[in-house]
Amino acid sequence: MVQDPRETQLELAPKNRVAIFYENGGPDKISIKDIDNVKQSELNPGEVLVRVLFTGVCHSDLHALQGDWPFPPKLPLIGGHEGAGIVVALGQGASEYVQVGDRVGIKWIADACLNCEYCRLSHEINCPQYKPSGYAVDGTFQQYVRHTARYLTKIPDGLELSQAASILCAGVTIYRALKEASLQPGNWVVIPGSGGGLGHLGVQYARNAGLRVIGIDTGSEKQTMSQQLGCEVFIDFKTTSDVATAIKDATGGIGAHAAVVAAASPAAYELALDYIRPRGTLVIVGMPNSILPVSIFKTVLMTHKIVGSAVGNRQDAVEALEIAARGMVKVHFTLKGLSDLPSVFEDMIQGRIAGRIVLDVDK
Amino acid sequence: MVQDPRETQLELAPKNRVAIFYENGGPDKISIKDIDNVKQSELNPGEVLVRVLFTGVCHSDLHALQGDWPFPPKLPLIGGHEGAGIVVALGQGASEYVQVGDRVGIKWIADACLNCEYCRLSHEINCPQYKPSGYAVDGTFQQYVRHTARYLTKIPDGLELSQAASILCAGVTIYRALKEASLQPGNWVVIPGSGGGLGHLGVQYARNAGLRVIGIDTGSEKQTMSQQLGCEVFIDFKTTSDVATAIKDATGGIGAHAAVVAAASPAAYELALDYIRPRGTLVIVGMPNSILPVSIFKTVLMTHKIVGSAVGNRQDAVEALEIAARGMVKVHFTLKGLSDLPSVFEDMIQGRIAGRIVLDVDK
Amino acid sequence: MVQDPRETQLELAPKNRVAIFYENGGPDKISIKDIDNVKQSELNPGEVLVRVLFTGVCHSDLHALQGDWPFPPKLPLIGGHEGAGIVVALGQGASEYVQVGDRVGIKWIADACLNCEYCRLSHEINCPQYKPSGYAVDGTFQQYVRHTARYLTKIPDGLELSQAASILCAGVTIYRALKEASLQPGNWVVIPGSGGGLGHLGVQYARNAGLRVIGIDTGSEKQTMSQQLGCEVFIDFKTTSDVATAIKDATGGIGAHAAVVAAASPAAYELALDYIRPRGTLVIVGMPNSILPVSIFKTVLMTHKIVGSAVGNRQDAVEALEIAARGMVKVHFTLKGLSDLPSVFEDMIQGRIAGRIVLDVDK
Amino acid sequence: MVQDPRETQLELAPKNRVAIFYENGGPDKISIKDIDNVKQSELNPGEVLVRVLFTGVCHSDLHALQGDWPFPPKLPLIGGHEGAGIVVALGQGASEYVQVGDRVGIKWIADACLNCEYCRLSHEINCPQYKPSGYAVDGTFQQYVRHTARYLTKIPDGLELSQAASILCAGVTIYRALKEASLQPGNWVVIPGSGGGLGHLGVQYARNAGLRVIGIDTGSEKQTMSQQLGCEVFIDFKTTSDVATAIKDATGGIGAHAAVVAAASPAAYELALDYIRPRGTLVIVGMPNSILPVSIFKTVLMTHKIVGSAVGNRQDAVEALEIAARGMVKVHFTLKGLSDLPSVFEDMIQGRIAGRIVLDVDK
Repeated sequence: MVQDPRETQLELAPKNRVAIFYENGGPDKISIKDIDNVKQSELNPGEVLVRVLFTGVCHSDLHALQGDWPFPPKLPLIGGHEGAGIVVALGQGASEYVQVGDRVGIKWIADACLNCEYCRLSHEINCPQYKPSGYAVDGTFQQYVRHTARYLTKIPDGLELSQAASILCAGVTIYRALKEASLQPGNWVVIPGSGGGLGHLGVQYARNAGLRVIGIDTGSEKQTMSQQLGCEVFIDFKTTSDVATAIKDATGGIGAHAAVVAAASPAAYELALDYIRPRGTLVIVGMPNSILPVSIFKTVLMTHKIVGSAVGNRQDAVEALEIAARGMVKVHFTLKGLSDLPSVFEDMIQGRIAGRIVLDVDK
Repeated sequence: MVQDPRETQLELAPKNRVAIFYENGGPDKISIKDIDNVKQSELNPGEVLVRVLFTGVCHSDLHALQGDWPFPPKLPLIGGHEGAGIVVALGQGASEYVQVGDRVGIKWIADACLNCEYCRLSHEINCPQYKPSGYAVDGTFQQYVRHTARYLTKIPDGLELSQAASILCAGVTIYRALKEASLQPGNWVVIPGSGGGLGHLGVQYARNAGLRVIGIDTGSEKQTMSQQLGCEVFIDFKTTSDVATAIKDATGGIGAHAAVVAAASPAAYELALDYIRPRGTLVIVGMPNSILPVSIFKTVLMTHKIVGSAVGNRQDAVEALEIAARGMVKVHFTLKGLSDLPSVFEDMIQGRIAGRIVLDVDK
Repeated sequence: MVQDPRETQLELAPKNRVAIFYENGGPDKISIKDIDNVKQSELNPGEVLVRVLFTGVCHSDLHALQGDWPFPPKLPLIGGHEGAGIVVALGQGASEYVQVGDRVGIKWIADACLNCEYCRLSHEINCPQYKPSGYAVDGTFQQYVRHTARYLTKIPDGLELSQAASILCAGVTIYRALKEASLQPGNWVVIPGSGGGLGHLGVQYARNAGLRVIGIDTGSEKQTMSQQLGCEVFIDFKTTSDVATAIKDATGGIGAHAAVVAAASPAAYELALDYIRPRGTLVIVGMPNSILPVSIFKTVLMTHKIVGSAVGNRQDAVEALEIAARGMVKVHFTLKGLSDLPSVFEDMIQGRIAGRIVLDVDK
Repeated sequence: MVQDPRETQLELAPKNRVAIFYENGGPDKISIKDIDNVKQSELNPGEVLVRVLFTGVCHSDLHALQGDWPFPPKLPLIGGHEGAGIVVALGQGASEYVQVGDRVGIKWIADACLNCEYCRLSHEINCPQYKPSGYAVDGTFQQYVRHTARYLTKIPDGLELSQAASILCAGVTIYRALKEASLQPGNWVVIPGSGGGLGHLGVQYARNAGLRVIGIDTGSEKQTMSQQLGCEVFIDFKTTSDVATAIKDATGGIGAHAAVVAAASPAAYELALDYIRPRGTLVIVGMPNSILPVSIFKTVLMTHKIVGSAVGNRQDAVEALEIAARGMVKVHFTLKGLSDLPSVFEDMIQGRIAGRIVLDVDK
């Protein structure tokens, strides 16, 4: 691992470079600017200041910008929710959780109450009071983030911060989704978009768990990548006339034990119900604002399960990072700078993003 | 318990009274007639002859008659798949499983291979070779049924055969569905149709498991019955303007942990997705040939589970009967005769059936 | 429910009546005295002051007094860890969790870090930093307890505080132990000491979960109580020559699915391994400082499970209270005063305690 | 894979070479002799004749010979229970399960009733009527074995029969034991005897499941093998003064999530209770006729689990073979001939066996 020299720079700069927008809309709404940095004395009890070095860009960030989800984000907003950096200042009581100099990650969940029934059962994503990063509170598209100490995740030694960034959202999300499929080694799992941002991480986490992976994507580049990462079977959806049949043929005529689908297109979810086997599970991870038509008759006949999965809890994040730190999972990403954020969103809108984008917030 | 005097009559009558149809269609297609009975010497290895005394009538039997499911039944067909009776003759090797005089039950699954992956894991309903009673093989709408010995279920002493009949399909089905909801004592479960055939059994099985039950049905008779059987909350869907809100109000504002829906109407399934809580489960048991529109976005946001459940396995049947034999669950049914079968189907078509119908096959 | 008039008295008295000891030893080491009460301004961030009304007395409290466990308690010590009372003052930030006037319970776990791997997975009892009430911090043998707000448990309306006291330790402990047995409705569970402090609660929680309960105890009083609370079978260990055989006979010749043993005598644990069935579970809840001799050969042959269980987590406490608040579980206890504590310990040493003791801390 | 030319020889030889003993005792009791082969017409319904090519030798086989287990084997006895061969003749009805020419495996369980509660739940090892191969019925130390068709396991193409032999007992046993530990990818599991017969397979199955493996064994050869097979940490018990501390040090100071112990020495089990973490699991697989002294106090304090595991069910066998057929697990064995069986037992008695022994029954 190459350590970033900035990891040891613990002083607070007077200014904080941020990507901010004041109203919802397109990428042109984003301003990159310097604002006054928070002072240590301004931190609330339990809060810390994190010097972000790298942040991923996620589809949810685009939704925050466009404001097209049913519940609106705060405005003005500094988005971003998969960031990796260094703790540089502690509020009162925060040292119970982290120390200055700790390498830490910021996730979709910026804080949860840790007291309600859901939190008591480790389902913080269902906490009625949870606050999403880069949505209800300012996120990681900036150099310095105020953050609740108790909800930061320590990044293990041996994992580069630029790698950690995407694990903290894309990685955890697909890792958790695989858990929700309740599979065991030797089971078949289908991962559509196996060469994409979440998908290529899913392939690796699945392989690490002893699963047999069928990747679906298109083009020789995606095929090569999918197979190198561990897909035992690859199906090019553009050149395969009947994907469901191809999957059944590859799995002894029965179908896959599960599909973990993070696609933006609703068709991928519907297709999955045709290629999972009796008693198979469709895990839904993507969030297109679409309707999945489910046949009631067939669901009973096949005793299918459909499970929604959304990011993971604190422990999932620790586990996903730990597996990556041992080299079992590697993020394939394109490194850009914070100033590229508008163009990244433009590419996302146009469907031109391949793989994961990580931004150096100093660039 | 009152024992039926016919339980000790073990001789084979020369004739067998059956309700048979030769082509699919309406209730008028059914003939009640006497045919020659099977002789002991005609039994195949592993087969027995069961003298049926009581049989339930299920919605699936109507589908078999009408032939409106995607895969057609055998023809001609003697339907029926929830029957209780006495073993009266054994084929070769059958004594490994049952003896003459045993009180036994016949279920939807007449036989499964017990050798495939699904059978090895006790999921016989998913066995590709399983044979449904009264559909792929002749069923319980007759006095004497040939049946695989290994797939009969012994009926415990202390449970009347007329009670056992409906447990063997309706009871097992709803019992298994409750299992699939993965609940624990104190959890809230909603059972639409709480005064109906499957529903009223579901209420009792749920109460026996320590669950808090919300029944949905309509009318004061159904309300009284639902509450007497153990519904802590009853919602009359005709007089309640917003059922989902009423359920949330009754459950601390969050919604129920699960809904187990056996309704014939697709609306009941869609409604359930509005009143189950985050991380809640909708178990689908009914089989209307309809589409359930599932919001992908909401499924993830709420981390909902949708689970199809279809009858149970051999062990589920033993458990469901055992609980009933201890008096924890009682079937409320109307007793009719086999000759009433056409009018029962007519009532079923017209939606005039309240509760469960059991037929005395000698009447 | 009868509300205690003291529940609405929210002012802080100048003095606090406590039962304290300065060194380990016998009941004579305990002093009942008035000390200056804590002032609101002295509360730490996240702390509250609880006006205790009732507290149970547990065997662990005797261990704290005697100092005979491997890790020593703090000294001087105010013991007690199952207390019910009212919040009367809030430290900074505590209002996030409770309000003045809230009815709350204090449990064995006074606080845990809520951040380590165990806490993240809801296993606070395994948190390396957890602090036991009345052991590492002062407990409920006093009128006013300083307590971390986040670890208090709200007591539901409808449950008397004197009832709640014993649920908070004895109830939660046996409730959790039953969970660890992984049973399902209709399974057989054996509860030795079915007429005792934990046992009589275990019988009721087991019945509420649909389990079939075999109680073991002695004497007609314990027998009557056990059977009234729900034991389907009662075995008097003094008049039964072969308890294991009696249990097998009662369970179809196979043995029970589980035993939940909270006994002080090691013999009860060894006996359980003789009467649980193949694949059965022994849950160990009691803490005699003794050795259980386990046959390696038999453990494999019978594929037995032995599981240690210790109190429960925050959610278990909420659940156990909720079930009691609905009247499904009632504590049978003897009410005494705080000044009786030395004699209660004396009785405990002499084995003269029958059932659960609850103290009114004002008496 | 190299196919053995004998796999296509489907005719029945007139003679059957067997290793038989007529009374219990030492290796000198074994006779290698030719007896008349079974004729097809002598097969019972449901039976087949299997031409065994390879058989493993297991510690249980030595117990059968010595007759030192509590329940005695049949006499005279042809032992052996992990055999791989070809179906060469079918009894009546057997074609429902296998065909002549099928590559099949024989396991410890030669047959079970498939009808009792345990069998209905896929726990055939607990079936009161199950019959062990090479113990209650003649086993695989012969060229031709009569065997129930329904209990044979098909060996996947691509797995050599000599490899399959040891998977069918040693492999399945350790595979199932790992399941009983209920671990997830990234958890630490300790496998004592990591270079031994069961252990070296356990290391590979554990790695395939994404577990982090700590092997315990002694000597540089065992160390090299353990590490090559996937042990992340290796502890030489002869050169490590404090094994438990070494394991805690390797696991962040907490201890391992589980230990799967198949050792013949009772000390290995007791040691495991010192190095598993709170809420950790000790899976017992070995069967020394010894007592494991379990501290009741510590079991509760640590909330430990102790689980006995014995071979696996039919599905476990299919899974274990499938994983091996894909090359994820390879058996390291020494190939000998059936005539070497007495000396193999002698070596076993003297503790001179390293790894797994497989016999070619024709040699």
